[in-house]
Amino acid sequence: MNIEQLFQSIKEKKSFLCVGLDTDINKIPPHLKHRDDPVFDFNKAIVNATAPYTIAYKPNLAFYESLGASGLISLEKTIKFIRNNFPGLFVIADAKRGDIGNTSALYARAFFDKMDFDAVTVAPYMGKDSVAPFLGFDDKYVILLALTSNPGAGDFQYHSDGTDKLYEKVLKTSLQWADKDSMMYVVGATRAKMLADIRKIIPEHFLLVPGVGAQGGSLEEVAKYGMNKQCGLIVNSSRGIIYAGNDEDFANAAKEKACEMQQAMKKLLISAGLVSA
Amino acid sequence: MNIEQLFQSIKEKKSFLCVGLDTDINKIPPHLKHRDDPVFDFNKAIVNATAPYTIAYKPNLAFYESLGASGLISLEKTIKFIRNNFPGLFVIADAKRGDIGNTSALYARAFFDKMDFDAVTVAPYMGKDSVAPFLGFDDKYVILLALTSNPGAGDFQYHSDGTDKLYEKVLKTSLQWADKDSMMYVVGATRAKMLADIRKIIPEHFLLVPGVGAQGGSLEEVAKYGMNKQCGLIVNSSRGIIYAGNDEDFANAAKEKACEMQQAMKKLLISAGLVSA
Repeated sequence: MNIEQLFQSIKEKKSFLCVGLDTDINKIPPHLKHRDDPVFDFNKAIVNATAPYTIAYKPNLAFYESLGASGLISLEKTIKFIRNNFPGLFVIADAKRGDIGNTSALYARAFFDKMDFDAVTVAPYMGKDSVAPFLGFDDKYVILLALTSNPGAGDFQYHSDGTDKLYEKVLKTSLQWADKDSMMYVVGATRAKMLADIRKIIPEHFLLVPGVGAQGGSLEEVAKYGMNKQCGLIVNSSRGIIYAGNDEDFANAAKEKACEMQQAMKKLLISAGLVSA
Repeated sequence: MNIEQLFQSIKEKKSFLCVGLDTDINKIPPHLKHRDDPVFDFNKAIVNATAPYTIAYKPNLAFYESLGASGLISLEKTIKFIRNNFPGLFVIADAKRGDIGNTSALYARAFFDKMDFDAVTVAPYMGKDSVAPFLGFDDKYVILLALTSNPGAGDFQYHSDGTDKLYEKVLKTSLQWADKDSMMYVVGATRAKMLADIRKIIPEHFLLVPGVGAQGGSLEEVAKYGMNKQCGLIVNSSRGIIYAGNDEDFANAAKEKACEMQQAMKKLLISAGLVSA
């Protein structure tokens, strides 16, 4: 999917919502737990219920890997289900990988070729040769960690040489590796006001924004400081949507939450003049 | 395994060698490729041949994940094989994970509880809450990326606030999170001379040292600048050992390379007065 298609999808759905499929076997509704593949059945129901309101899904690999081989099978089935039933959705592997070149290349082939993801989150600590192998795929994206939404973000990401904090250095340096057609960035909603400065460095790139909802970030502030001419935002919500309900009606509860967020996003897109009312 | 037991193992084997099980299905000897589980069969042969000379094994997860569910099965079988046949070896998941707290906790349980690794490599970018969930396991270890051996290491790890480069900041900050009984660090052999300064910050911790061999680092320099009273070094070699041969005699070729490295390590341990001749 190229950036123009992604923006088209945002305009059609009047949404820039990504649903995080952080499917925890211990948190899914009890009536699903004795199915053959409870994780996949849960994901299928969530996707069916929320797809009209979302432009993207983001499974976090940890939730699947922690189940061993069976978790990877559930993940592969989930991606196939999305591809077969809802073409045009953007599917992100939240993997936060990053290793020496030949090893990153293996991860890249696994996520892009084997598992058919559109994008993968990558950690910048090891520098260019750890990121570059993810960049050689048409219409696929590295989403590089820049400024994350968690409490520990401040431990190293603000480390400053007097000119640039580490996350600014990551933005500026990685701009030399790829443009917006193959790179996006993670910027947490809990640092929304810093988006204005970040937009000075990367005005055109898409941002994946976690931390709205459970972690306390404000959607309105994210849009105010982060939106650009192509929207430029993919706002993720995981727990707030997928665990909105915990009984047989869980998919409906997720649908209502997703619809609520989509309605708020629609208003923001209209205000910005990107879609008509 | 506690640190005392690890040091005991080093003294008994007169070795601080770790063999990296970066098993690439495209690089293993042709005669294995049509087996039911060529990756496991390769690993089993390598472990059987090299175990007398090593104290540790380090599968890099990328090589297994890139094969999907079947790769994870090969990995789990490999760990069980090591545990059942060579108790007392230290087994490291080279995973370079790091995510928000509740997600890191899932990875920690996957690697320590489910897969029975002794240690896991962790990326520091997201700070304390991304690392802490790996610390709550008795006799298990976080091996935190500090100064890596790849070319891109210089892109961000040297970012300095005038007092500390980023990797020094990582060392100093993480010292407040855990001591040598639950934390180790990755320091690449290609930066061996910097080990002297690193040892001023972390005199007692074990270091996992990649980059000897294929990446050009010198074992003698690593020992000269990095060895401490409990050896404090786990030096990894992957490709140089496991792909030493590529025919039916591949295990023997790996054995010879491992033995060669062990002999060099024995000399260095004797010189340091840690074992007797």
